[in-house]
Amino acid sequence: MPVEYTLAELARRCGGELRGNGDTHIRGVATIQRAAAGSITFLANPHYRRYLYETHASAVILAPVDVQACRIPALITSNPYLLYARVATVLTPAAPVRKGVAAGASVHPAARVSVDAWIGPGAVVEEGAVIAGGASVGPNCVIMANARVAEHSCLVAGVTLCHGVHVGKRALLHPGAVIGADGFGIANDDGVWFKVPQLGSVVIGDDVEVGANTTIDRGALEDTVIGSGVKLDNQIQVGHNVRIGEHTAIAGCTAIAGSATIGRRCMIAGGVGITGHIEICDDVTITAMTLVTHSIHEPGVYCGSMPMDTAARWRKNSVRFRQLDMLARRLAFLEKKLKD
Amino acid sequence: MPVEYTLAELARRCGGELRGNGDTHIRGVATIQRAAAGSITFLANPHYRRYLYETHASAVILAPVDVQACRIPALITSNPYLLYARVATVLTPAAPVRKGVAAGASVHPAARVSVDAWIGPGAVVEEGAVIAGGASVGPNCVIMANARVAEHSCLVAGVTLCHGVHVGKRALLHPGAVIGADGFGIANDDGVWFKVPQLGSVVIGDDVEVGANTTIDRGALEDTVIGSGVKLDNQIQVGHNVRIGEHTAIAGCTAIAGSATIGRRCMIAGGVGITGHIEICDDVTITAMTLVTHSIHEPGVYCGSMPMDTAARWRKNSVRFRQLDMLARRLAFLEKKLKD
Amino acid sequence: MPVEYTLAELARRCGGELRGNGDTHIRGVATIQRAAAGSITFLANPHYRRYLYETHASAVILAPVDVQACRIPALITSNPYLLYARVATVLTPAAPVRKGVAAGASVHPAARVSVDAWIGPGAVVEEGAVIAGGASVGPNCVIMANARVAEHSCLVAGVTLCHGVHVGKRALLHPGAVIGADGFGIANDDGVWFKVPQLGSVVIGDDVEVGANTTIDRGALEDTVIGSGVKLDNQIQVGHNVRIGEHTAIAGCTAIAGSATIGRRCMIAGGVGITGHIEICDDVTITAMTLVTHSIHEPGVYCGSMPMDTAARWRKNSVRFRQLDMLARRLAFLEKKLKD
Repeated sequence: MPVEYTLAELARRCGGELRGNGDTHIRGVATIQRAAAGSITFLANPHYRRYLYETHASAVILAPVDVQACRIPALITSNPYLLYARVATVLTPAAPVRKGVAAGASVHPAARVSVDAWIGPGAVVEEGAVIAGGASVGPNCVIMANARVAEHSCLVAGVTLCHGVHVGKRALLHPGAVIGADGFGIANDDGVWFKVPQLGSVVIGDDVEVGANTTIDRGALEDTVIGSGVKLDNQIQVGHNVRIGEHTAIAGCTAIAGSATIGRRCMIAGGVGITGHIEICDDVTITAMTLVTHSIHEPGVYCGSMPMDTAARWRKNSVRFRQLDMLARRLAFLEKKLKD
Repeated sequence: MPVEYTLAELARRCGGELRGNGDTHIRGVATIQRAAAGSITFLANPHYRRYLYETHASAVILAPVDVQACRIPALITSNPYLLYARVATVLTPAAPVRKGVAAGASVHPAARVSVDAWIGPGAVVEEGAVIAGGASVGPNCVIMANARVAEHSCLVAGVTLCHGVHVGKRALLHPGAVIGADGFGIANDDGVWFKVPQLGSVVIGDDVEVGANTTIDRGALEDTVIGSGVKLDNQIQVGHNVRIGEHTAIAGCTAIAGSATIGRRCMIAGGVGITGHIEICDDVTITAMTLVTHSIHEPGVYCGSMPMDTAARWRKNSVRFRQLDMLARRLAFLEKKLKD
Repeated sequence: MPVEYTLAELARRCGGELRGNGDTHIRGVATIQRAAAGSITFLANPHYRRYLYETHASAVILAPVDVQACRIPALITSNPYLLYARVATVLTPAAPVRKGVAAGASVHPAARVSVDAWIGPGAVVEEGAVIAGGASVGPNCVIMANARVAEHSCLVAGVTLCHGVHVGKRALLHPGAVIGADGFGIANDDGVWFKVPQLGSVVIGDDVEVGANTTIDRGALEDTVIGSGVKLDNQIQVGHNVRIGEHTAIAGCTAIAGSATIGRRCMIAGGVGITGHIEICDDVTITAMTLVTHSIHEPGVYCGSMPMDTAARWRKNSVRFRQLDMLARRLAFLEKKLKD
């Protein structure tokens, strides 16, 4: 059944200042270029401003600066992308709540599964595991012994929680995520590696999202800790004993080595590498494919990736990089010569 | 039952100009160094030319330039690697076609599974999903609601298709691939992240290969689109609303951020990062571990990765990199001084 | 049942020179900062030396150089981290051995599963596969046709072994690992890619550890080979026909392209890229996020990653990098001018 609201109702539920006909009926969201009648769109990126004149949307969410140029009903707000997200959430029919244990699931008799939880086909819940009310353990997930999933968390499909891992409330774990595999602890015994037991666990706070095929290792002695509100994209690797502060967001394919501590509200782009045993303070932004080799004590933006070029130019310059120290010495020699 | 052909039959089926005894019997393929009697090998890389004299192969596939040096029966072609691939395909016995739903699979009564499709043990096919004839859904795959797999596509094992995803004909999806997980859409609400509903889907064309543990996110409003003939290696991350043009090939561990558009026939090496909202035109080659930070409008080869060195030399040079702007200013100062 | 030993017994079982009261009872391990009575800790990193005075541990494992500063019972050794690993192993109760085929597993009648092996719920074992005694195939693992798992190996959960793959003894494969998917072999046919059959397999030696979501591709013609004692962290990509020598350790998210050969006892950090068809000799160390573009013939440490900086400084310097060849030419011109 399609969801439909008037623009005035959306303003009341989601915020934003109503401008124009509040009785405008809205049934869905769309991009500003492709919107059809009955849909609401948004303008957050000035790059798309030119589409404002020609959009077929019935209403638009935009910032005060764009109001002048707008001829259709609107919701005005200082953060159009956020208000769009709220409106889209209201307009998206909630997935039907499923309860019970599907045929083809394997639930150990000594696991505790709430009657209000759902265990999908092919899912395995081992001894001592706890699945709280409203939680959803999708098809082919594996919840190993004594792991716990709190209220209203959703493991979409094929998620693995290793033994003893704790996942907080309203978490969303995408397919292929692996939480609590052994950290990479090995001690060298005269050229042969001896495995160091990984005795800690993983503790994930509330409202955390974990992307597809992301891996979070269990701690060596203490726990790996993911703070509440943390958002992790796909294929991120989080090493043992890492601590990630609340509301930090990390994009895909970033790797965090063991015992690194990351502050709150950080924004870490994709493909970043963070070396082990360092600390990053709150409110740090790191750009894509940077290698963070030492602690960061000041909020701000940090970079470390090289700018792409055509192969011909790149080769010429990168050859010179290998001579850079010598070039600097030659320059200093000239300076000295000219001073004398 | 082993497959066996004469060299003349292979030339007729696969192409290449026959030279020498067409009745030579061929039962398999092998590398030029390890080939035994009854096998055919190939010479595509001049580095291996020296093995041509001593190979025990019964025949060889090679380019006209190497014919002079060849004393065994041969198939001559301008593209030996391609002809080798064709011959190897003919000589490889096809896997037996499996049909039906295995015991231990879970197929929703409202899914439509062709009688000519195979659903392996542990696989889950949800409501409204469609599996076409000749398609193979291997062990422990999950096909979520309303996802579609077209004719003769093969999901090897443990592949997840999220709801509504479309996979074209003759696709080959390797284990652990996740198609259609939510894109990484979050809006900042005064330091706290609010999830942006991901309402698009993923559309994969025909003849696409997707590597193990590769992830392709669903679009935010419109679809993520993978063109026909695209080949993706393992552990690639494709963000929401990315569009990849036909016949583009991408090597392992490359990450493509949201809304990037990649042209046709591009060749992108491993470990590359492509930032969001940029465009790469047709016929672009990008070398390994390059970060593409802006759009590319000209076909050609692009680089951005630093050349490795010994740690001692590297340290000296990379320290100078942090002084590079100052070095350039000092050089300009000297130039000015000498001009005066 | 908790495990408890006296310090003297631990010295006898694990090594180290006993100092102080050998009757000290030890029930567990802990970090030096958080240790409580009854636990043993270790001091391997001089950074933590200051905690030696205030730890509540009942005993400590340390190097001779730290003995003077130590006031509690101790085990003295030249390699405290290794001895700690041994002691932790002894003090960690072994997981109960499981045997038999769980309800909900699918084992083909023509597979050979030892009566001393365990097949978990949801696991699939195909025709011709062999699971040896003491081996453990966890929940939702897939063992495809003719794959073999040797004695006492453990596939934790959701591991996929493709057809014909061999895993040696005492291996530990973490969730989501995919062994033996097709290598990335494609031949270009006038702009369209033709798949090259991947006819080799993967052979993994004894005592190998493979991290979560790591992928190891099958060989094109010969096998991909992982030597005994190799330790692979999470999300590593190993291309077709790669050979990794014994006792080499590789950290997370490293990618190794096809046909690269890596020596013995190498230590490769995280996020490294290794290009195809090159050779790395024994005893090579490579630092994080380095791209190895050519063969390495001398043991030693190799680097290639740029040092992070603040965005403001980084931009200034990286712009200059694109002028580096010109800067070098200008410097040479000045030198020539001053010589004349």
